[in-house]
Amino acid sequence: MDIGIIGLGRMGADMARRLARGGAHVIAWDRDHAAYAGLRDEARIECVDTLATLATRLADERVILLMLPAGETTQSVIDALLSLISAGDTLVDGGNAYYKDSMRRALELSQLGVRFVDAGVSGGVHGLAQGFCLMLGGTPHAIEIFEPFAKILAPGSDTGWLHCGGSGAGHFAKMIHNGIEYGMMQALAEGFALLDARKEFDLDLARLAETWRHGSVVRSWLLDLSAEILAQGVAPERIAPVVADSGEGRWTALESIEQGVPAPVITMALMARFSSQGRSDYTRRLLAQLHAKFGGHPV
Amino acid sequence: MDIGIIGLGRMGADMARRLARGGAHVIAWDRDHAAYAGLRDEARIECVDTLATLATRLADERVILLMLPAGETTQSVIDALLSLISAGDTLVDGGNAYYKDSMRRALELSQLGVRFVDAGVSGGVHGLAQGFCLMLGGTPHAIEIFEPFAKILAPGSDTGWLHCGGSGAGHFAKMIHNGIEYGMMQALAEGFALLDARKEFDLDLARLAETWRHGSVVRSWLLDLSAEILAQGVAPERIAPVVADSGEGRWTALESIEQGVPAPVITMALMARFSSQGRSDYTRRLLAQLHAKFGGHPV
Repeated sequence: MDIGIIGLGRMGADMARRLARGGAHVIAWDRDHAAYAGLRDEARIECVDTLATLATRLADERVILLMLPAGETTQSVIDALLSLISAGDTLVDGGNAYYKDSMRRALELSQLGVRFVDAGVSGGVHGLAQGFCLMLGGTPHAIEIFEPFAKILAPGSDTGWLHCGGSGAGHFAKMIHNGIEYGMMQALAEGFALLDARKEFDLDLARLAETWRHGSVVRSWLLDLSAEILAQGVAPERIAPVVADSGEGRWTALESIEQGVPAPVITMALMARFSSQGRSDYTRRLLAQLHAKFGGHPV
Repeated sequence: MDIGIIGLGRMGADMARRLARGGAHVIAWDRDHAAYAGLRDEARIECVDTLATLATRLADERVILLMLPAGETTQSVIDALLSLISAGDTLVDGGNAYYKDSMRRALELSQLGVRFVDAGVSGGVHGLAQGFCLMLGGTPHAIEIFEPFAKILAPGSDTGWLHCGGSGAGHFAKMIHNGIEYGMMQALAEGFALLDARKEFDLDLARLAETWRHGSVVRSWLLDLSAEILAQGVAPERIAPVVADSGEGRWTALESIEQGVPAPVITMALMARFSSQGRSDYTRRLLAQLHAKFGGHPV
């Protein structure tokens, strides 16, 4: 039960911990060795100095889990690994890669006899304690090799992980999962904004969110998080009204366009994030000027 | 612990059951006596022939819960009750009334010495077993009178029910809750549509939904229901692609406009329901003709 983990950010480090606590022996590497500090006291986690050491410390038929930012970082690490690994090894990409990239990587690696699993991982900060939800794509044999680790990482040995289908299916399922997440989050945030704006009721939003957690139709993990945030009562002026977007939302909107299948709410949630990033400002400035031009309204 | 319940639809009947099983004595009336059949075997539920009997069977300082369709039905029953009830009685409207109607009713009834509680009720079909989430608006005294019943109806005596604020605050909170629900449901449905459309992965959506229930960010009661629906595997052609809307979504969108606070996702979810009802057909027909006119495309 040896596994290599590359990338010890929040998710990677917690997955290393959950694997080690579940009985696996983890060989870990991160470009930034500062990430090793938090793992020193964990039994069965060995942080190594170089990628090459990680490869040599793993037995034949290596299993290596990549927990890296999607795109260039993931690609450069895979490229670097190619000279260090061998036919029969299995790479598992647990990052948020675009599923078409994962399909290409699976094909390229298969030419070298290297197996590839695209693993969509959800769960966020509670994953260490509650388990990570895993959506896996790849050949049955590749999944079989990763299965013992999936059973440790997931909330239960038979729950919260799924072999979704061939290569790309795992990251595809994760992409849509995140698109849904965009829409659900936006709906919740809009609702609380409307509740906050009707000042005459002077609603206690933290208590209302907590109340909804019990028996309401909108009860959800995202509502649980909303209740936590509202209970902390951080002054709004301390939070910049800017929401990042990570790629998955854009890919889901692209998917809708490619398929010609409408996803108006998910797309609108993405557009709302773009606006929050100031990307509506050109439009707004031009609108303000047009408004002034025909109506004499001040800009 | 006597309470009258008027309206024994699915919600009203289950609330009557939960109250009776929790120790209350329930006097129940429905215009349609067929609703009584399912309640005959329940201890502590007495179904009566007329509204007048309901009023006389309750002791002084009556508490009467209305579980009726919002609008005319609720108003006509309140009007009929006026000659049967007295100052000191408490009416609780557990329907989905518009909060501005509830504010008006509270004021009108207060002139007669009748207390009014606007009670937003969420929970759907699982409410009987798991409890109903209650959002209450009214004076502290009116809420105090209803509190023993709220504690039985809610998932716990101190969880899942809240005195939100003055008259209207309960139905206002429920309205926004339902607006959020519109957005969350639409996001989930759009996501599953995109998953279904990418046929090459041949995803098992029932298993994927079940997997997401464990540890994923989108886990929620609405996802639980989606998993149930997908597991039943009803052939799509047996389900008309038409989604009703009940008023709450429209009022939430109106609220956004009245406040000038954007709720694009909730509003889009409402518009998507209108489209499903065929209410985009005029637009579509005109568009198809415009398209034909300038491009020579066939209609």
